[in-house]
Amino acid sequence: MTHTRAEIITIGDEILYGQILDTNSQWISRQLDDLGIRVVRKVTIGDNETDILYAFARAQKNASLVLITGGLGPTNDDLTKPLLAKHFGVEIKLNEQALKEVTELFRNFGKELTPTNRTQAELPVNCTMISNKLGSAPGMWFDENDTVFVVMPGVPHEMKGMMTEIILPRIKERFSTQLIYHKIIKTTGIGESWLSDKIKTWEEQLPEHIKLAYLPSVMEVKLRLTASGYDKKQLIADVEKEIGKLKPLAGKYIFGYNDDTLEKVVGEMLRSKGKTIATAESCTGGFLSHKLTSVPGSSDYFLGGIVSYNNAIKVASLGVNEETLNKYGAVSEQTVNEMARNVRKIIGTDIGVAITGVAGPAGGTPDKPVGTVWVAVSDNDETRVLKFSFTKNRMVNIEASAKVAMNMVRQRMAEYDKDTR
Amino acid sequence: MTHTRAEIITIGDEILYGQILDTNSQWISRQLDDLGIRVVRKVTIGDNETDILYAFARAQKNASLVLITGGLGPTNDDLTKPLLAKHFGVEIKLNEQALKEVTELFRNFGKELTPTNRTQAELPVNCTMISNKLGSAPGMWFDENDTVFVVMPGVPHEMKGMMTEIILPRIKERFSTQLIYHKIIKTTGIGESWLSDKIKTWEEQLPEHIKLAYLPSVMEVKLRLTASGYDKKQLIADVEKEIGKLKPLAGKYIFGYNDDTLEKVVGEMLRSKGKTIATAESCTGGFLSHKLTSVPGSSDYFLGGIVSYNNAIKVASLGVNEETLNKYGAVSEQTVNEMARNVRKIIGTDIGVAITGVAGPAGGTPDKPVGTVWVAVSDNDETRVLKFSFTKNRMVNIEASAKVAMNMVRQRMAEYDKDTR
Repeated sequence: MTHTRAEIITIGDEILYGQILDTNSQWISRQLDDLGIRVVRKVTIGDNETDILYAFARAQKNASLVLITGGLGPTNDDLTKPLLAKHFGVEIKLNEQALKEVTELFRNFGKELTPTNRTQAELPVNCTMISNKLGSAPGMWFDENDTVFVVMPGVPHEMKGMMTEIILPRIKERFSTQLIYHKIIKTTGIGESWLSDKIKTWEEQLPEHIKLAYLPSVMEVKLRLTASGYDKKQLIADVEKEIGKLKPLAGKYIFGYNDDTLEKVVGEMLRSKGKTIATAESCTGGFLSHKLTSVPGSSDYFLGGIVSYNNAIKVASLGVNEETLNKYGAVSEQTVNEMARNVRKIIGTDIGVAITGVAGPAGGTPDKPVGTVWVAVSDNDETRVLKFSFTKNRMVNIEASAKVAMNMVRQRMAEYDKDTR
Repeated sequence: MTHTRAEIITIGDEILYGQILDTNSQWISRQLDDLGIRVVRKVTIGDNETDILYAFARAQKNASLVLITGGLGPTNDDLTKPLLAKHFGVEIKLNEQALKEVTELFRNFGKELTPTNRTQAELPVNCTMISNKLGSAPGMWFDENDTVFVVMPGVPHEMKGMMTEIILPRIKERFSTQLIYHKIIKTTGIGESWLSDKIKTWEEQLPEHIKLAYLPSVMEVKLRLTASGYDKKQLIADVEKEIGKLKPLAGKYIFGYNDDTLEKVVGEMLRSKGKTIATAESCTGGFLSHKLTSVPGSSDYFLGGIVSYNNAIKVASLGVNEETLNKYGAVSEQTVNEMARNVRKIIGTDIGVAITGVAGPAGGTPDKPVGTVWVAVSDNDETRVLKFSFTKNRMVNIEASAKVAMNMVRQRMAEYDKDTR
C-alpha cells in the first residue's frame, strides 16, 4: 500500500523567530491524514529568496503534493508569488477573474481598489486561481511534472476556508487514496485516566484495523477511532459496532461525536424540546453566553443573559437578595441559586443557568481559593447547584466553568425524555 | 553583518500527522532570538532513515548550529542516535557517566535498570553528553566541521530543562552572537494596504539595520521592526526614533506595542481615568464582555453587561423603545444608540457600549446583509454611533465587532486627555 507523499512549506519570519505559533500546519496535516495522505516533511523558512527557491525545488522532487502558506500579501516582504513564477520559469500576469473578485470584495467594504491591492490579482500564468472569500489574496493551484503545488494565505481563517471549500475536494479528486475513516467520540465529566480504566477491556478487544487515541482538552476527553481499509461502508459499520460496545461502559460521559461541541449539542436539545434559556454570569464574564451564541441559529432558544460582574449589579439587575450576598458571599451556593432562579424569571425563559466563582489570579481566600466555582441550573421544577474546584489559571477556569454549566443543562434536559414534558 | 544561522530539526511521526502541536520549536526559536541567533529553517520529518540522514546532511551545510529534538527513546522506532553515528561515521559505545546518571534516576524511582534502558546510556563516541535531570535519555553535543549539533529529547519539560540549564549557556559561549531587537507596533482601524500606502515614505527611509514586516489578523495590522547590531541600548534608541517618525503618519491607528491587546489597553485607560463601563450586546452574544473580562483585575472597571439576544429582552431588560424596534429594526442606528445610553444608566457606569448586527449565516436582508453591524459608545456628554460591513463568516463578524467596539471606547477615552475630565 503506497501513500501519497505530501510536504508542507510555511513561509514567514514571524514563525522562524517564534513570534507566532504555527497551528496551520497541524490543521493541514489532520485534513490530509483524513484523506489517507501522508505528510513526510514540514519546512518553515523565512522571507528569503535562496531559502524559498531551495525549498520549492526540494519539495518538487520529494513529494506529489506540496502545500504552501504565507508570504502572499501585497507588501514588499511578500515573496511567495514572484518566486513561484521564477521556480516554474513563467511570467506573472493580471488574472481577470482574480481582479473581478478582489474588486468586488473591496466594493463590499465600500472601498476603492488601490494600485497595491491590484497587484494581488496578478498571478503566475501556469496556475489555476483559487477564490478567497475572506481576504484579498487569492490562492493558487499548480500541477507540473507530476507534482501539485497548492498555495494559500497564512491567515488561518482564510486558509481554512479555502482548504475546506475548494482545495480538499480537489485533492481528493486528483489523488486516489486509501481510505482512512475517523470517528471522534466526545466525553466530558471524567478525567483521562479514569476513563481509560473504565474502558480498558473494550480497548484491548478492538480489531487490528481500528486504532484508539485519547485526546484530552479542558474538561473534555476525546476518543478517536481510526479505521483503515478499502471499503468505506464496512469501515463505518465496524466503527459503529465498537461504539455500540463502548456505550454500556461510558455512555453517560459521551455528549457527542466528531465536530459536536457542548454548545451545539445543548442547542439542539433546547430546539428539539422547544425550550428557551437565559444566563447569569459572574466570573465567566459573558463567556458562557458567547459559547451558546457562537452556534448559528442560537437565537431560536437563547433569549438573553446578564453579566453581573459587580455585586451591586447582582442585586440591581438580577434581584439577588442583599442579605444573601452579605451572609454567604458572592461565591456561594445561595447566591448562584438565586442568580439562576431570577434570570429565568427576568428574561422569561424555561431554563436559567448561573455561574459565580473566583477566576483568579487575585480574589482567592483560604475558604474560597482561586478556581472555586458554583454553577446552578434552574427550571420550573427545581434548581440544581454544584460546586467545582478548578485550576489557578484564569482562562482555564473560565472555559471549564462554561463547559460544566453546559453539561449540567445537557444532563437536566436528558432527563426530560424520561418524563413526559 | 552576519548572524549565526541555526536550523531546528524535529523528528517524529506524531507531529507530521498532526496529532501533536509542535510548541517546542517556537520556544527554541524565542530563546535563540534572545541571543541574536537567527533560525533560518525548521524541518519536521518522520521516523524514517532516508529523510533523517538527508536532513542532517543538509543542516550541516546550511547552518552553524543545528538543534534536534525527538526520536531518542529506547524503542526500535527511535532512530536519531544510530543515524547520528552513521552521519558522523563513528561508533556507538557505552558512556560511563550516562550509565551512572540513568542508573541513579531509576534508583530514585525505586526501579532496576532494564537492558532496554541501559541502551540509553550508549552514545556516539564523538559527542559530549548533556545530563537530563528529568528523564532517561541524555542529550548530546557534537562539534564537527564548524557546525554544532545539539540533540535533545522531544518531551517539552525535559528539553526545556536541558536548554535552560546547560545548552543555552554553552551556545552563548561557543558563538559570540550579535543582538536582535524586536518591537511590534499594533494598529487597528486601517487595512494592510492602506496603512502601507500611508507609511511608504517612512518605510523607504528605514536604516539598513532595521527591517519592517506586516502581520495582519482580524481588524488588526501589526508592524514588526527588527533591528540588529551589537549595542542593545543603541538598537532600542534607533527603533524608538523610527517609531517617533511613524507616529505623525499613523499614530491614530496605533493602540499598543508587543503583547498589548485592545482589551488590555482599554482596561488600563479605564482604570487610570477612574471610569467604569457596561456592555449591551446583541449579535456578539457576550463576546465583548468576555474579552473585557479576560483581563485580570477587570472587575475594577467592568461592572456588568446585558446580552439582549431577543428583541423582547431589548425592551424588557434594556428599555429600548418598542416603537424604535418596530420602525427601524433591531439592527439600526436608533436601536444601538438606545442600547448604549440605557445600559449605562441601568448598570450605573460612566460609559456604555453597545453592539447590534447580523452575524450570520442566516438573518441577512438586501438592506441589512450578513456582516452589517452597528456599534455605539455613550458617556455623559454624547453617544457616538458607527456602522460597519464585515464578512459572511459568523465568528469573524463577532470578533471584528468586539474589536471595533473596543477601539471606539479607546478613541473616546483618548479625547478625555484633551479635555479636563
